Formats: sequence, structure tokens, C-alpha cells
Amino acid sequence: MKQITSVQNQIIKDLLKLQEKSSLRKKEGLFIIEGIKEIQLAIKGNYQLKSMLYCPQIISQTEFEQLFNINENNIDLIEISLDVYQKLAYRSTTEGVLAVAFIKNHQLTDLKFNAKNPLILIAEAPEKPGNIGAILRTADAANLDAVIIANPKTDLYNPNIIRSSVGGVFTNQIAFGTTAEIIEYLKQHEINIYCAELKAAIPYHTVDYTKSCAIVVGTEATGLSDEWLKSAHQNIIIPMSGKIDSMNVSVSAAILIFEAKRQRNFK
Amino acid sequence: MKQITSVQNQIIKDLLKLQEKSSLRKKEGLFIIEGIKEIQLAIKGNYQLKSMLYCPQIISQTEFEQLFNINENNIDLIEISLDVYQKLAYRSTTEGVLAVAFIKNHQLTDLKFNAKNPLILIAEAPEKPGNIGAILRTADAANLDAVIIANPKTDLYNPNIIRSSVGGVFTNQIAFGTTAEIIEYLKQHEINIYCAELKAAIPYHTVDYTKSCAIVVGTEATGLSDEWLKSAHQNIIIPMSGKIDSMNVSVSAAILIFEAKRQRNFK
Repeated sequence: MKQITSVQNQIIKDLLKLQEKSSLRKKEGLFIIEGIKEIQLAIKGNYQLKSMLYCPQIISQTEFEQLFNINENNIDLIEISLDVYQKLAYRSTTEGVLAVAFIKNHQLTDLKFNAKNPLILIAEAPEKPGNIGAILRTADAANLDAVIIANPKTDLYNPNIIRSSVGGVFTNQIAFGTTAEIIEYLKQHEINIYCAELKAAIPYHTVDYTKSCAIVVGTEATGLSDEWLKSAHQNIIIPMSGKIDSMNVSVSAAILIFEAKRQRNFK
Repeated sequence: MKQITSVQNQIIKDLLKLQEKSSLRKKEGLFIIEGIKEIQLAIKGNYQLKSMLYCPQIISQTEFEQLFNINENNIDLIEISLDVYQKLAYRSTTEGVLAVAFIKNHQLTDLKFNAKNPLILIAEAPEKPGNIGAILRTADAANLDAVIIANPKTDLYNPNIIRSSVGGVFTNQIAFGTTAEIIEYLKQHEINIYCAELKAAIPYHTVDYTKSCAIVVGTEATGLSDEWLKSAHQNIIIPMSGKIDSMNVSVSAAILIFEAKRQRNFK
């Protein structure tokens, strides 16, 4: 097993760059996962690992190997010192384990639906990692059939998304596409489109979500593009009666998703 | 008008401490508000301002005075340089205005309900400023009758709460108390208690929220205390069917609040 005790080691320097630069993640096709649960969810989600790093000052080799069935996999193992671990890890409370994994493609054409009437969330051009992570976490809880990101602006493998999704990046079926591609896809698959929007919209709870449907949310700043609004089966609005008159996009998405779940009797 | 151009000025040093230290905010009874909209919401919410700081390199004196009806109020005005503003401001995109305001007391006994059947959210021991801010933002959108924080752990006037609430700190009726005090208060006022909890709970959407009621949420780590669970009219659960099996507390609160709003026909 490789051992690294210096933060100046080239492998460590490369990993730090991988965490910081989405362009490098795309080029190398790799990203970093932190935390036992997150890595386990990634493995269950069929992510292929390239290497694993563990810090024996935090977790024993035996425990580490048991947790991840190391012997059965063809993975580079690297032992790292506490210094090196702390340099690489974001969280102070994690468990001494990091993994380097291969990114997936997230093509629309790869989506597979087991449900007869899938329920999908679509977010157009979301930017804040915290919001994207929160949406993925909610999507997992609701067991959505897919989350589709239209015109993505932020790399899915941003460490802040992985962290705030609590691993939801790995448990959801996720696809990317341009807004035009996604609308075409939904039409082909006869999936109704419900756009969260303030104008020409009816209250969200008066709509029937029991058929195949996609709930579409935009950004807080600019809402949804005209393309979406024109293609909507129906524009929907969450009635608000406060003094601020806006909600966080991940909160709005959750309210809409769980109204659909309620109508479907949580099945 | 006072003018300050040095970040070494004692007034500026004191304000920086006020942003950082909740103990100092409590001692002085003062806190800082950043942003035009936030300050306007605070004024509308009957917060009394002690002083206002504006940066003429960002906003003109005329515009500043018009925005806040400066002449009608008995407020110290301080002109600050761009350097000083940038030292004090958290956000890069704000509008060159800060206010120092007096904190409120937030006593349970100060709560006033206009609605015949008030709808209240209670959060026990929430810690993360981002979550508290998100809850307050949602509470504003739902026009809740009150938000009550039980056994508070984080100062309400934490700059991160003000920011993430988008001013919801000022638009909601907010009270603090111990869990015992709040339960006593709710019983006295014949307000039903619905505790979000995993055990011995029924699905949240099968409960009637049209009468006076309080929805109670705990922390993600430890849930609600036994005191709450024992006092519940009913424990409720949001059915989850994912692989992670947890949701962000502000997201859970929003789902519960808007189910109550739906049942009340958003009135």
C-alpha cells in the first residue's frame, strides 16, 4: 500500500486541484468523495472508484477494509497521515476516508423508469451548490424517478453539492440537457410539464400530479425561461402571503414534490 | 454628519465586534442590519434604529435619505468610505447601507394573534443559522401567526440568520422560551401540538391542521425532546422512501407548513 505523509506530495497536490477545479474534474473524469456514508452510497449507486485514501490515525485498516469490501475491488489504496487528511478533508468531523471516483455521463437517454407514471423534478440553471444539494436530498427522500438539470451552470461533482446532498448525488437518477433537449424528451415520453412560475399560473395544489409528470423550477433571480413556460402543460404557483414574497428554490421544490407525493399516496 | 474613513476607527472596531459576538449583541442590546430591503423590513417591523451608515461611493445622500425617511427619525447618521463599508459588509453586492438597531425581547407573552385559529411553527434548539434563516423565510411566505424557538442555541441576530432569512427575522412574530414554558403557553391558549417525529407517528397529511395548531420540529441530529413528544396532540411523520432517509429541517418544516396552508385553503 502506498503511504503519503507530505502535503507536498504530487498526488495530494493533484487531488487538491481536483477539489477546487471543475474544469479539471471534467478533463480527468474524476472527483473526490468524503465520508464513509457518502462513499458507501456512491458504491451502491454504481460509481466506480479509482482509489481510496484512509488515515490510520482516525480509522483502523481492518475497519476500513470491512466497511468497503476492499479486497473485492480493484482499487488503489493509499494510506495518508493526519496532516494530509486534514488538508484534503472539508469537514472536521469526517471519518478519515476519502475516495477518488469516476464521474458519470448523465445522459437523458440513459434514464430508466421503473414506475408506470414517473415523477420527475427539473431545475433550470441552478447555481448555488447548497441549493442543488438540498434539492437532491429532498429528491432522494421522495424517491423521485429522476432529477434533470437543464442548462447546468454548476458541476454536479462540486464538493459542496456532494456534502449538502448528504450523498443524494449518488442515490438519484440524474440527467443533464439543454432546456430544448429536455422538453423534447418529455414530450416524446408523454410526461406532463408543470412549471413553477408567478405569471398565468394556478395554485399548485389544484393540479393533478398522479399521471407522469415533471415539476420544473427556475432560479430565484430570473425564474424559468420562456421556452419552459411555453411548453408547460400548466404553470403553477405556490400562494404566498408574506411581506418578502419569495422562497428558496429548494424549499419551493420540496413543497411541490411532496404535494405530488401526497396525491400519489406516497407510493 | 459624522464621517469615518479609517477601518481603525473605534466605532468601526466596535461594530465589527458586534457582528462577530452574540454575547456583545446581548450586552449592548444592539445588532447590525445590512442591505436596503432588510433595513426597510426592520423599520416596518417596528425595529428602532440607533444609527445608520452609508457609503456615498455606492449610494447618493439624496437617495439614501429618501429611501429611509431619514429626516423623520432620530437616528445617528455616519458617512463611511468604501474601505470601511467593505470591511463591515458581508455581501459584495449590497447597496452601501448598514443600520445599527435595537434588539427586541421576543417574550411569549408579547405574542398577539389576529387569526381565530393561529398556525404556528416551533423549532426546538435549532443551531445552524442557514436553517433558521430558511425557516423564517418560509414562515414569512406562509404568513404564519408566529415562529417560536424553544431552548434557543443561536442568537437570532446572527448576521447569517438575517441574511439567509432575507429579512424574515423582521417580518415574523418571533418568540423564545424553554420547551416547558412554550408547552404551558400552548395549552393555556388551546393550541394543538403536532410534533414531527419518526416514532409512533402518523403521516402528516392525514392530520387536520385547520384548528389552532403548532407544528413542532427538532434538530436533524437528535429530533425532538421527550417533553415535546409527550405533550403532542399527535406525532406526525413525513413518509420518506429514499436511501438516505433524512431531510433538512427547514425543508421538512416547509412541507408541513404548506400542507397546513393547503388544508386552510391558503387563508
